[in-house]
Amino acid sequence: MDVALIPYLAPVAGILALLYAWSRSAWIGRQEAGTPKMIEISQSIADGARAFLRQEYRVLVVFVVVLAALLAFANSRQAESSWMIAISFVTGALCSGLAGFAGMTVATKANVRTTQAARTGLASALNVAFSGGLVMGLSVVGLGVLGLGVLFLAFDGLTDWDIPRVVSVISGFSLGASSIALFARVGGGIYTKAADVGADLAGKVYEGIPEDDPRNPATIADNVGDNVGDVAGMGADLFESYVGSIIGTMVLGTAYLAPLAAAGAHELSAILLPLALAGVGVLVSIVGSFFVRVKEGGNPQHGLNIGEFGAAGLMAILSYFIITMILPAQWTASGVTFTATGVFWAVIIGLAAGTAIGLVTEYYTATGRGPVNGIAKQSVTGSATNIIAGLGVGMYSTGIPAVILAGAIMGAHHFAGLYGIAIAAVGMLSVTGIQLAVDAYGPISDNAGGIAEMSKLPAEVRGRTDKLDAVGNTTAAIGKGFAIGSAALTALGLFAAYMQQAGVENIDVANPTILAGVLLGATLPYVFSAMAMGAVGRAAGDMIKEVGRQFNEIPGLREGTANADHTRCVEISTKAAIREMIAPGLMAVAVPVVVGFIDKSMLGGLLAGLTVSGVLLAIFQANAGGAWDNAKKTIESNFEVGGISYGKGSEAHKASVVGDTVGDPLKDTSGPSLNILIKLIAVVSLVIAPLLA
Amino acid sequence: MDVALIPYLAPVAGILALLYAWSRSAWIGRQEAGTPKMIEISQSIADGARAFLRQEYRVLVVFVVVLAALLAFANSRQAESSWMIAISFVTGALCSGLAGFAGMTVATKANVRTTQAARTGLASALNVAFSGGLVMGLSVVGLGVLGLGVLFLAFDGLTDWDIPRVVSVISGFSLGASSIALFARVGGGIYTKAADVGADLAGKVYEGIPEDDPRNPATIADNVGDNVGDVAGMGADLFESYVGSIIGTMVLGTAYLAPLAAAGAHELSAILLPLALAGVGVLVSIVGSFFVRVKEGGNPQHGLNIGEFGAAGLMAILSYFIITMILPAQWTASGVTFTATGVFWAVIIGLAAGTAIGLVTEYYTATGRGPVNGIAKQSVTGSATNIIAGLGVGMYSTGIPAVILAGAIMGAHHFAGLYGIAIAAVGMLSVTGIQLAVDAYGPISDNAGGIAEMSKLPAEVRGRTDKLDAVGNTTAAIGKGFAIGSAALTALGLFAAYMQQAGVENIDVANPTILAGVLLGATLPYVFSAMAMGAVGRAAGDMIKEVGRQFNEIPGLREGTANADHTRCVEISTKAAIREMIAPGLMAVAVPVVVGFIDKSMLGGLLAGLTVSGVLLAIFQANAGGAWDNAKKTIESNFEVGGISYGKGSEAHKASVVGDTVGDPLKDTSGPSLNILIKLIAVVSLVIAPLLA
Repeated sequence: MDVALIPYLAPVAGILALLYAWSRSAWIGRQEAGTPKMIEISQSIADGARAFLRQEYRVLVVFVVVLAALLAFANSRQAESSWMIAISFVTGALCSGLAGFAGMTVATKANVRTTQAARTGLASALNVAFSGGLVMGLSVVGLGVLGLGVLFLAFDGLTDWDIPRVVSVISGFSLGASSIALFARVGGGIYTKAADVGADLAGKVYEGIPEDDPRNPATIADNVGDNVGDVAGMGADLFESYVGSIIGTMVLGTAYLAPLAAAGAHELSAILLPLALAGVGVLVSIVGSFFVRVKEGGNPQHGLNIGEFGAAGLMAILSYFIITMILPAQWTASGVTFTATGVFWAVIIGLAAGTAIGLVTEYYTATGRGPVNGIAKQSVTGSATNIIAGLGVGMYSTGIPAVILAGAIMGAHHFAGLYGIAIAAVGMLSVTGIQLAVDAYGPISDNAGGIAEMSKLPAEVRGRTDKLDAVGNTTAAIGKGFAIGSAALTALGLFAAYMQQAGVENIDVANPTILAGVLLGATLPYVFSAMAMGAVGRAAGDMIKEVGRQFNEIPGLREGTANADHTRCVEISTKAAIREMIAPGLMAVAVPVVVGFIDKSMLGGLLAGLTVSGVLLAIFQANAGGAWDNAKKTIESNFEVGGISYGKGSEAHKASVVGDTVGDPLKDTSGPSLNILIKLIAVVSLVIAPLLA
Repeated sequence: MDVALIPYLAPVAGILALLYAWSRSAWIGRQEAGTPKMIEISQSIADGARAFLRQEYRVLVVFVVVLAALLAFANSRQAESSWMIAISFVTGALCSGLAGFAGMTVATKANVRTTQAARTGLASALNVAFSGGLVMGLSVVGLGVLGLGVLFLAFDGLTDWDIPRVVSVISGFSLGASSIALFARVGGGIYTKAADVGADLAGKVYEGIPEDDPRNPATIADNVGDNVGDVAGMGADLFESYVGSIIGTMVLGTAYLAPLAAAGAHELSAILLPLALAGVGVLVSIVGSFFVRVKEGGNPQHGLNIGEFGAAGLMAILSYFIITMILPAQWTASGVTFTATGVFWAVIIGLAAGTAIGLVTEYYTATGRGPVNGIAKQSVTGSATNIIAGLGVGMYSTGIPAVILAGAIMGAHHFAGLYGIAIAAVGMLSVTGIQLAVDAYGPISDNAGGIAEMSKLPAEVRGRTDKLDAVGNTTAAIGKGFAIGSAALTALGLFAAYMQQAGVENIDVANPTILAGVLLGATLPYVFSAMAMGAVGRAAGDMIKEVGRQFNEIPGLREGTANADHTRCVEISTKAAIREMIAPGLMAVAVPVVVGFIDKSMLGGLLAGLTVSGVLLAIFQANAGGAWDNAKKTIESNFEVGGISYGKGSEAHKASVVGDTVGDPLKDTSGPSLNILIKLIAVVSLVIAPLLA
């Protein structure tokens, strides 16, 4: 096929995805929203979420403008490039913000309509919830390929630059996406966990009010948190991963310009291949979404599985044809021979590694398996043994994924060099559209359940939403595996791209300066996690105090005759999240710049240490949190140890609640932010690389 | 001075230290042991400790014999070397075992005599407790310099090998020390924490029996644990550090044979310098010990400070003269010029970095400071926020030490190359004799307090032992800083030595195979920690069950009219510790061998990843555990938040106890074992390096 057409076709796929997302969104809007009480509650949630995003974006606008100005004037030697990087950066930030905003808006519409649909049956409820997730998924991938394609066309068409310069300038798009993602993830994560932990503990500290009780003033904030953290935050996160993996591969593809031409192929083949894979992946995601259906009384899991695994399988097959059509059968660069089938095998290795990490993740965090049962068992002797067991499970769970990743890195490199490592990540993320739909479907169902509870709908409605919420765990685990795997591979791709652009020959850790960089890089995820966890702790404390104040000062609240002031709690979470996201965000941007100007090889070491340490700490935190969560659920459905049954309200249950609460910020705030931290620092390094060269 | 005399003088210093230790030990034996009840209790503790060491050593003998045989027959090309490595290995293992045994035997004599002395006054109690610690400290350094000196003389005198081969063979001594240390630390750590956590929780689960109550069948095991974990385990640990730092430096010194001769100096100067520093350090430690005195009514802290800091200061000054006497003013190797003053500055950087890390450690873990108060404050809202806060403090606390270490690595290298990094660690550890005395003095005082409690002595006696126990925290924190700092620098020294011996040119992490090695290495500390924590959890569970059984089956135990069966609990801890130490121990020995034979550069990457990740995870675990411990103590001495005072028995106190219990295995089992793990794997790599070359 004509490779030159790819930059035109990819945006077309993106526009198709956005149109389809728009039509699903309109369809959701046309569904019934239920009783006035339901509408009122969902309106409060939507208002809270929008208020948070508005405040968040207000801060981010300042950040984007300042950073854009710095980028524009940073490199006076290449003033034109600098301006274009700034433009790419702003575009990336805008697209990321748009994707998050669109996804969250639809999610706050879909939640109440899922509840309403669940009043009549499971099938239609699944349809609404999944459609809500799909809008988010398709917005992310649609804006991703559209933005990248248009920027490539613009810079390639309007300038007379050589291709490496064009690609280098586009990396600003990734920087925009990553920086917004970090703030969105950290801010959203702090918001949601401050509200969650606060609502939880406030109920415990004051008068035994349950978390979901409408009298608890923090409930609405808790539900808002699901939307801003688990939907908007996750959307920005995956937008960043998606874009980062594509750009990392494009930069590495610039090494093959002449070699590909010499082999009789289009010189841009390797650079545009990731865009082609992504474009086709967008269409495959749409096709996959048609298969997500459930019969009344059936298991929604099947539909999700067919949709997601079907899409991934189809993509694996199609990628063979795409790769062999675009790349020549073989070409030689720097004395090494590369083949199209080698690149295909790298993609397959990426998909296999992502799936395998996902299955391992599931093993360590799923109910009914050894690790989670072990934590449940240790809860019988109290919170301390519950915590020790959970920390142990989290640490153990880093082992096999590390071996898988090590194997994937070596394998992908064996088949297709550094380019192979980067394209493996693109393969993993090519069906992000449907994966994200499945991920975002979770918090929508969760919210739907909360609305059912707060509106005092019949128990069967909550039963249906719980059923929706309970499935998709495996699919979500696989999604997590892909997120972790792709983050590691993308970071390595960006790392290699940095070395290429900065002219760093090697990163020899036997050199003390580089080793010092490795050490500093490895520490960053610890400090960053501590900042995020500290922020959650402080904000949750404020929330607990506010709830106490309301119970003391609002007459009738305790008895249920007066309404709680939800708005104040929403404000507390919002302010805390905005305030606390700034320091870790700035650290992530400033550290690589400072270290890079001290020594560009030291920055290389920092990237290596950061990636390795960050990936492990992220797996540890995510799995410990997930396992604690499910250990609690295991006990709630009556867990037997030595002939004695422990259920809700038992001492073992109380211990398991402690574990769950500890796990919350680990798995929803600091853990997932680390993936972004790694890539953001890598992208910042890549963008400043020409200055260091 | 005549450099050739060093291998003779160092063992003489070692023998002097051992003689002095022996005389202090005899003096302790001559002190009164108190009432029959006290003698009975201390006898039970001593019997339990000896029984554990006997069983542990029985397993280790098998390990040592098998590994010695493997070493002896591994390399048929250099059969003679292989045999000599095996002999060095067995000698190292023996010396380590001896040091641990001697220290523990004296500690179990000194504990009850400290109690008895505390019945009359503080000064004599300090004297007994500190003398007990000093015997351990001097045995460790005495056997270290004696063993190394004698092996050098033997291999140099009895063979016609060149010096690099002699030094390479001696590295087997370090392997013996490290492998015994790992088993002793892990086994001892599991023992002590299984007993501690078990005794603690058993009291909580069954009938509210306090931890130190003589009716609690796990009390004796708990006190035995202090001796086998905190005394014997720590002794083996520091013996390993001490020996490892010296040998790492000796190996790196072989690069300067010809250059030193060309500069007109003795060719062995750089190789024997660490031995000279260590030998003088032994004598300085003895001198320092004379200054550890306290007046009746005075603060024992002063005496300890004068002894430890005085020794360190004196050593810093003496090292200048030793270094400039032994090394030439300057010499040139591979085009780089080195100077004696440069080596001196490297030593000073090491001492400064160790002290700085110690002060940071103290800041994050001491009562009355921000971090610990923060955890205490978060305890008010429950165990969950207590745990989150503690994890946060632990993670934060890795930041500054990482910066200090990075600076020390770059600084020491700047002044004296890789040799400078290694000798900096030797400088830190040169006064290990008195540092270890201060460290081991802690558990002896702790035991003395337990004996006072169990023997129902007047409260003033417990008051005096508590006063002894409470001081020495700063000195112990500095000691920890030195342990962490020296571990990192020694590991780097061994790492460089490995590269030199295996003929690895560089460890370029841009190479995917090496990066895979880094990733695998970084994972090992997680998996290892998980194993150790899981072991503590399981063994504590067994202990709790046994205590429950005794309360149910022994009539009169509950009422205090019948005696608990302490022996069964001692057996449970012993069996669990022996059983559970094997898997992580074997993993540590097997992994580098397997990876090394796959690819020697990959093993280099593994060492880098392991060192960086292990150091950070060790700091995190040690400081989180220490901070939780002191947050509990803060609340126990009545802590005020928002005008409300929280003390013993409050909900905040219960929450802080959970944190303390979680921190126990982190700070006393998995955390300290990581330092050994790092060096053991590095030493195994160094020993197999000639096979990979």
